[in-house]
Amino acid sequence: MNLKTYLTTHRVLVDKALDGFLPKATVKPATIHKAMRYSLFAGGKRLRPILCLAAAEACGGDPTAALPAACSVECIHTYSLIHDDLPCMDNDDFRRGKPTSHKVFGEGLAVLAGDALLTMAFEILAQSKTRGRHSCGSLITELASASGSRLLIAGQVADLENEGKKVSGRELQFIHRCKTAALLASSIRLGAMSANATEKKLEALTEFGQSMGLAFQIIDDILDITQTSEKLGKSAGKDVAAGKATYPAIFGMERSRKEARRLTQAATEALKPFGKQAVTLQAIADYLLDRDY
Amino acid sequence: MNLKTYLTTHRVLVDKALDGFLPKATVKPATIHKAMRYSLFAGGKRLRPILCLAAAEACGGDPTAALPAACSVECIHTYSLIHDDLPCMDNDDFRRGKPTSHKVFGEGLAVLAGDALLTMAFEILAQSKTRGRHSCGSLITELASASGSRLLIAGQVADLENEGKKVSGRELQFIHRCKTAALLASSIRLGAMSANATEKKLEALTEFGQSMGLAFQIIDDILDITQTSEKLGKSAGKDVAAGKATYPAIFGMERSRKEARRLTQAATEALKPFGKQAVTLQAIADYLLDRDY
Repeated sequence: MNLKTYLTTHRVLVDKALDGFLPKATVKPATIHKAMRYSLFAGGKRLRPILCLAAAEACGGDPTAALPAACSVECIHTYSLIHDDLPCMDNDDFRRGKPTSHKVFGEGLAVLAGDALLTMAFEILAQSKTRGRHSCGSLITELASASGSRLLIAGQVADLENEGKKVSGRELQFIHRCKTAALLASSIRLGAMSANATEKKLEALTEFGQSMGLAFQIIDDILDITQTSEKLGKSAGKDVAAGKATYPAIFGMERSRKEARRLTQAATEALKPFGKQAVTLQAIADYLLDRDY
Repeated sequence: MNLKTYLTTHRVLVDKALDGFLPKATVKPATIHKAMRYSLFAGGKRLRPILCLAAAEACGGDPTAALPAACSVECIHTYSLIHDDLPCMDNDDFRRGKPTSHKVFGEGLAVLAGDALLTMAFEILAQSKTRGRHSCGSLITELASASGSRLLIAGQVADLENEGKKVSGRELQFIHRCKTAALLASSIRLGAMSANATEKKLEALTEFGQSMGLAFQIIDDILDITQTSEKLGKSAGKDVAAGKATYPAIFGMERSRKEARRLTQAATEALKPFGKQAVTLQAIADYLLDRDY
């Protein structure tokens, strides 16, 4: 398989679907729809939705049936970035090389654009045509719990509360699991559920998603130190500058790299029962480990 | 029927259910769960959830089946208050006689507590045991659309953009419909849907909810001028002070009172097909028109 082609074609698929789900930028009040679209179409890699589609395919499903789920996780991801960037949170001026939402639209509207994307995520997910094992209700519960106060939001709270403090390795893992791995794993689970996956396959893919998700965040921490802002499209070195705990800061660079490799290996193990059907998920995990931005 | 007893028993029902749905205040990270509970249990009248339950009863349904829907609308209402009170929005220090969320927990956490309640609303609503005409997906779509960028959030955006500007009567009605009437009408619709209401009954209750909801907001505008902060449990006169358009400011006090009465009459008309089954909804609409806080 050619991963580059896969990523491109599937990103186009996701972009088109998102464009169809979102209200046009002219719908009243135009500012909120402009702001929602500004952040949603700011050049994201669409990693979460693509993982969602690839998981559906790994379970023998049609990826287009997983498109509502794929678009819903991207809305959640984008809302969380808009709110994380606010002055009262991480206070970030740039994201993906462009001014952040509150820099362009003002703080009030940035809060509301995040709220609107969060709400829209569930409106889109409710359009999933589920049948078989997984009901619409179970998909909604899956997304709400991954993005709720015990996971995604829990991670941001812990992150906020620990700024400038000495953080233990265990606490950092809690933050990374909540803030990053949970939604990545949930994207994969939602794709599998859209493809009517068995409980056993769902468990294996959850294992894959959690390991791969944690590896992803460790690499992110490493790149924050080793790469330039230009390459990352966001302020490099900002975690360190903000006094945030990172994997390399606590465990050292070498041990961090080793842990990312070990986790990717564990993710690979979890895919074994899928055989050739998981070739794309495997390729994505390998690519994420070796990326340099 | 005794409305006072009805409101008390049903408020207790809602409070107990909310307490059961929300994570305990000790669940990690404790701050977010404390903040969610602080605003959710700040002494709200539970108007929206009670309307939801009363609508279910008007359609011959068991109110307990509508409890997830009732709790979900209260979560949405509370999140919208937390975010509206933020310094970057209405910048309000008091709500229901208590310091607002950002005053107690800080701005970052207040944003996150709102996000968490918004997310929780859908997690709770997904637990509705629907059967018959209305699927779980249609309930989710109903709530998401009423609280999304074309209604609830649209109202807040228009409100924000018009602050200090001269607003037309038409624009003010758009704001009131979006910011207040939409979620009130949706609470009623969700109750009816939980009770397997026919399309015809749903339409009649939508009519009722929209008229009653607009009357409710006009009375709110009037009370902001005529009542003390102590009585209202929030800063009285703040709409006028903030240069916000209100019904009495545009149409005068007498015409505003008349319009609220006319709308309540229209709401009453819409209830006719329900006969005695709508006695509670009727009593609530009358009570809201005559309230003095």
